[in-house]
Amino acid sequence: MNFTINKTIFYNALQIVSHAISPNSPQPQLRGLLINAENDSLVITGSDADISIRKKIVKDEKNMLNIIEEGSILIESRYLLEIVRKIDNEYINVEIIDGALTKFSGSSAVFKINGMNPMDYPNINFSKPESFINLPVSVLQEIIEQTAFAASIKETRPVLTGVNFRFNDGKLVCTGTDSFRLARKVIPFESDASFNVTIPAKGLNEVKSSVLQNSDSSVELYMDARKAQFINEDTIIQTKLLDGAFPETDRLIPKEFLYTMNISRSDLISAIDRTTFIKTENMAIVRLQCSRDEVILSNKSQEIGESRETLAAQFEGDDLDISFSGSYVIEAARSLKGPQLKIGFTGEMKPFVIFSEGDDSVLQLVLPVKTYN
Amino acid sequence: MNFTINKTIFYNALQIVSHAISPNSPQPQLRGLLINAENDSLVITGSDADISIRKKIVKDEKNMLNIIEEGSILIESRYLLEIVRKIDNEYINVEIIDGALTKFSGSSAVFKINGMNPMDYPNINFSKPESFINLPVSVLQEIIEQTAFAASIKETRPVLTGVNFRFNDGKLVCTGTDSFRLARKVIPFESDASFNVTIPAKGLNEVKSSVLQNSDSSVELYMDARKAQFINEDTIIQTKLLDGAFPETDRLIPKEFLYTMNISRSDLISAIDRTTFIKTENMAIVRLQCSRDEVILSNKSQEIGESRETLAAQFEGDDLDISFSGSYVIEAARSLKGPQLKIGFTGEMKPFVIFSEGDDSVLQLVLPVKTYN
Repeated sequence: MNFTINKTIFYNALQIVSHAISPNSPQPQLRGLLINAENDSLVITGSDADISIRKKIVKDEKNMLNIIEEGSILIESRYLLEIVRKIDNEYINVEIIDGALTKFSGSSAVFKINGMNPMDYPNINFSKPESFINLPVSVLQEIIEQTAFAASIKETRPVLTGVNFRFNDGKLVCTGTDSFRLARKVIPFESDASFNVTIPAKGLNEVKSSVLQNSDSSVELYMDARKAQFINEDTIIQTKLLDGAFPETDRLIPKEFLYTMNISRSDLISAIDRTTFIKTENMAIVRLQCSRDEVILSNKSQEIGESRETLAAQFEGDDLDISFSGSYVIEAARSLKGPQLKIGFTGEMKPFVIFSEGDDSVLQLVLPVKTYN
Repeated sequence: MNFTINKTIFYNALQIVSHAISPNSPQPQLRGLLINAENDSLVITGSDADISIRKKIVKDEKNMLNIIEEGSILIESRYLLEIVRKIDNEYINVEIIDGALTKFSGSSAVFKINGMNPMDYPNINFSKPESFINLPVSVLQEIIEQTAFAASIKETRPVLTGVNFRFNDGKLVCTGTDSFRLARKVIPFESDASFNVTIPAKGLNEVKSSVLQNSDSSVELYMDARKAQFINEDTIIQTKLLDGAFPETDRLIPKEFLYTMNISRSDLISAIDRTTFIKTENMAIVRLQCSRDEVILSNKSQEIGESRETLAAQFEGDDLDISFSGSYVIEAARSLKGPQLKIGFTGEMKPFVIFSEGDDSVLQLVLPVKTYN
């Protein structure tokens, strides 16, 4: 194998693909990036067995790809990234000189690096599942930002570490929950497809940071019972799905509210953020005392002290006294976009729902916390 | 105690003083900042027992300090910083309401925090030693940047964890060494003072990040056998000195060279930086093969591979083959300022010296490493 390519374009591609790599994988092949040079294009593959990314670079006037000899190499990802990033020329030449020993040349600098045998790289099946939908990059980005943070980080119920994507009746419903809070985004949608899968939140976050870079383009999302595959231009990222039934959450979400509150999103975030250093058992449990006259946010810990402030909020309903995790409500409020929030309550020990005023597509549900004030 | 002050000015002062704090100190008082309000000024003190900082804020039109009642409080540093940074007003009021319970008020937000008894704060002696010199902030900054990094980070020889400041014969000589490399800065200076002390590098780095913010001003450096005290405007930082004799290093520094090399500083840094990922036993040992015709930088590891590049350098002397720690030479070169370096060698197993061309005040000495190429 022997090819020359523009350093910056090559580096950016390697960096995207390396998102799939676990640099400390016990399997040395999975610490590597596989590069295939054939038919006037490079195909770069990286994987940690759960998530795999493949990116193709087709020869053009910008990348100036010149394949002198076809072939493939497998090189430890971190060495490859270091060399290509720092090489002393606008172009880099990559050549196998002996077995897996690969030479990288810039202007004066030359590296000869011990690669691995590409034949030992696991066979990753990038075949496309049949069912698919097409989403603008900006929409997929919003789905991930507004739901993935609410997934569980504990492995006790593995299915909760993912975001459920359910599509039927012309609606794509995306739900993340760790059983203490829930995030839901609903996109109306025309398609013949029908699916109900749970995609690991980790995979979605990799999708966001690797393929969703050009927000003007669109993403094809292919799914079957085993994997989800995202295709954007010349990049494919696929992740295995989570097994097990995602909990039925529809009935948990109240549709009508006995109490409602309207508040500026940034005011709510600042007020809670001011008080989260006051922790009890490592959690900031914030208390909201609402009446038509006044909404008071307070927090108290035996050890540290207490805080109290009046919020500039409009509250409708009977008096309400409710406590919750400050960081859950901050994360929920941060994920919603608009300037104004509406919060709907149904009772002091019942889940409450946070909406962005003027955006029906997304809701954030939070369970209150029992306190003994 | 009861005072009101501009939030931003108060926060900046607290942040400077908190540099002295070890947030996880086993002694709760030392996790706190002590604030004394008297005579139209606030005095803020923080300490980890080795390093202590005291900053005074005198009432003026910018800080709008208004002391309604004199007194003192001792509050855990991280709570104080959180509250003052995030308070919902341009001004903050601080008031003792009961014993050590202290109230912080902004516009709507109110915090009542459990403080500690100021009487329990250790008595820190901020008296000025007699011997002192006066340095421009920019000069002290350069001394610290060019010497402190070369001090040892291992506690095996405690005196090497500091920078030696020796003043006599009209010269201030500052030396840092970990016994594998040495950094020396010499400042010609008029003063009657005479001293030879070793200041912990940690303390110097705190001086740099806390008091050396206004580079137009000057610093008074007071010293006796036990402590060094730096005074800049309204800030005092003092550190205990390291015991033990600092090694005699003058004779280690060659004055004449058998071989010399001239090279662009950025070229040398880039060339070494490109190859430091090739490590043997976790160290990048770089080899320089010099002749009048060519200077070659190379690096080799059994496991990873090798690199080789020709440097655009002018070399004078017989052929020379020398190996050294890449990161030591990068750190030395980074600390020197000018565009062009001169490196003087006296032999393949003898220390070599890196100068910044046109700046005689500073030198960096590095010991070569024996290799079996």
